[in-house]
Amino acid sequence: MKLNITCIPGDGIGPEIVAEAKKVLDKVAEVYGHEITYKDILMGGASIDVHGVPLTDEAIADAKAADAVLMGSIGGNTSTSPWYQLPPEKRPEAGLLKIRKALNLFANLRPAVLYQELSDACPLRKDISDRGFDLLIMRELTGGLYFGARHTTEVDGVRTAVDTLTYNENEIRRIAIKAFDIARKRRGIVTSVDKANVLDSSRLWRKVVEEVAKDYPDITLSHMLVDNCAMQLVRDPSQFDVILTENMFGDILSDEASMVTGSIGMLASASLNDSKFGLYEPSHGSAPDIAGMDIANPIATILSAAMMLRYSFDLDKEADAIEMAVKSILKKGYRTADIMAEGCEKVGCSRMGDLLADEI
Amino acid sequence: MKLNITCIPGDGIGPEIVAEAKKVLDKVAEVYGHEITYKDILMGGASIDVHGVPLTDEAIADAKAADAVLMGSIGGNTSTSPWYQLPPEKRPEAGLLKIRKALNLFANLRPAVLYQELSDACPLRKDISDRGFDLLIMRELTGGLYFGARHTTEVDGVRTAVDTLTYNENEIRRIAIKAFDIARKRRGIVTSVDKANVLDSSRLWRKVVEEVAKDYPDITLSHMLVDNCAMQLVRDPSQFDVILTENMFGDILSDEASMVTGSIGMLASASLNDSKFGLYEPSHGSAPDIAGMDIANPIATILSAAMMLRYSFDLDKEADAIEMAVKSILKKGYRTADIMAEGCEKVGCSRMGDLLADEI
Ligand SMILES: CC(C)[C@H](C(=O)O)[C@@H](O)C(=O)O
Ligand SMILES: CC(C)[C@H](C(=O)O)[C@@H](O)C(=O)O
Repeated sequence: MKLNITCIPGDGIGPEIVAEAKKVLDKVAEVYGHEITYKDILMGGASIDVHGVPLTDEAIADAKAADAVLMGSIGGNTSTSPWYQLPPEKRPEAGLLKIRKALNLFANLRPAVLYQELSDACPLRKDISDRGFDLLIMRELTGGLYFGARHTTEVDGVRTAVDTLTYNENEIRRIAIKAFDIARKRRGIVTSVDKANVLDSSRLWRKVVEEVAKDYPDITLSHMLVDNCAMQLVRDPSQFDVILTENMFGDILSDEASMVTGSIGMLASASLNDSKFGLYEPSHGSAPDIAGMDIANPIATILSAAMMLRYSFDLDKEADAIEMAVKSILKKGYRTADIMAEGCEKVGCSRMGDLLADEI
Repeated sequence: MKLNITCIPGDGIGPEIVAEAKKVLDKVAEVYGHEITYKDILMGGASIDVHGVPLTDEAIADAKAADAVLMGSIGGNTSTSPWYQLPPEKRPEAGLLKIRKALNLFANLRPAVLYQELSDACPLRKDISDRGFDLLIMRELTGGLYFGARHTTEVDGVRTAVDTLTYNENEIRRIAIKAFDIARKRRGIVTSVDKANVLDSSRLWRKVVEEVAKDYPDITLSHMLVDNCAMQLVRDPSQFDVILTENMFGDILSDEASMVTGSIGMLASASLNDSKFGLYEPSHGSAPDIAGMDIANPIATILSAAMMLRYSFDLDKEADAIEMAVKSILKKGYRTADIMAEGCEKVGCSRMGDLLADEI
């Protein structure tokens, strides 16, 4: 099979971790007989430095021309980097928001999994982490407060700022369908999270999710208020399978869930549109403080590449191979600095890539 | 001193826990020579059952006429209670939103404290909970998405819902001042939480908080994105002193923080206006499943009464006496069911109230 992949190395540790993901993908291509072509594009600070904007139209066109996009990470140190002297719409993160909208990537899948081998890193009490957990947050990614109209005005010397949270039923329906579809391949449980006791958008959300649920009699649906969900993720994350929620709630809850695993350096994500196309990136940030030191953990990016093989190319066997390689390497006791534990062997970013490629 | 208190027993366990708080307040009045008059009003489901609405104008007038309001809890089982068949603006929680706005209670103080004696209940790993923590969330309570314009329309068969997130600088300034003032009486650290990389309202929030900070050179201010804060509360809550944030983020983060303590039955809250007036209530809900069984934990309500003495009546000595009584009773090994641990004596709601009153 021919795989046409656009890469966004990005900022901070981005280039290093994407290099390792390519290494592993190349090995997969070799072993399973595929042919991969890569094209790199600039986004975020890297693009600002060259083009003055975080994402050019040419870069968007290059991303659209690919079968899938693999991304490292975007952004720098917000207090010291000159990128953050720019107006908000020119900063690195604006590139990320722009590409999500331009490619219509409305479905953000963020798995939060507790790896047995890394359960010591979990910040939860042992009797809770011993239960293990494997949940997926399905976050709506192109609507809500992120993309509603906003403005700041000054009237009689008083500044007022307004953001708008808008959802229409079509936006809700398509993300709900994605959530139910994926729940079918998992444990069949969807928890839809909203703030229906306050927001009109949440009440519409709940209604449309209920309507979609009628087509999925095999799936167990429940609704949970966002404040309660923020509690339940700490109290007992094992109760969740798929959490379905809107953009801003998803941003907060998925980061909370990733920290609850204790090993955010292991967490992949996928942002999908209505076809097979998707953008794949680690859940963690660009860690500018350790950039270029060859100590970053490339596993989240490598697992994002596995999600890419699975969702954009239907190459399940190949995706399984990567995921199994990760488990096996953990079992053998290799660890990057962020997940280091007693009795394990500490390895750098590129060495971890080598080990995983060899394992395929 | 004469204390003129309006009580809202409310729904579920509300009446039981408010009764115990009155018991303790009466003992304080006796010991320290004060005179308390109570007046009960209906709110939530209790008001719906009698008046058809969750809060009447007469009840609001009674609340306004008092020096302070002490509340139990509001609401019932959302799937089985007939209250939730009503339109949103007639449901129990609407009464709570209405009274917050009517009394201009813009500053919601939600302390999250890990009690040494209850640290086993903390869901965090022992090495994290051993550090202890004592943070306070200062949540803006009468603005933002909660009180902005909202509507749902249907155009060409497509339903769209819109909520509005609005803040003006005066709303931000007054809550920021409250946060800095209280940080001065604590450890002098304010973390202002927003989503300034996306929202206009957050960018204005950040600016105004910076402006206010100029008058508080003795306070250390930092800014944190809401997604990161949701992570940090799990990773290491001991890093926080005062968290200052807007209404919806405060709703989510304060519930998360309360769960991180592991003993939400111990957490008080205060909602203040610009004068000494305030509404005091436990952070937990109405627990309809255990209502009337005399097993609820009244301590959060009793500690809310202590906050009332401190903030609305400047009776610090009396507030200290209640807080010390709680610590002493915990040390003596008395526990309600929700915080029960091996080797402790389990007591009911009214017995806990008796023990605390005797301890004053
Ligand atoms: C960088 C930021 C705009 C972005 C978001 O809030 O969506 C990030 O936090 C994420 O979750 O991908
Ligand atoms: C009941 C609900 C409307 C309320 C809120 O969201 O403010 C509650 O969760 C709270 O935090 O007091």
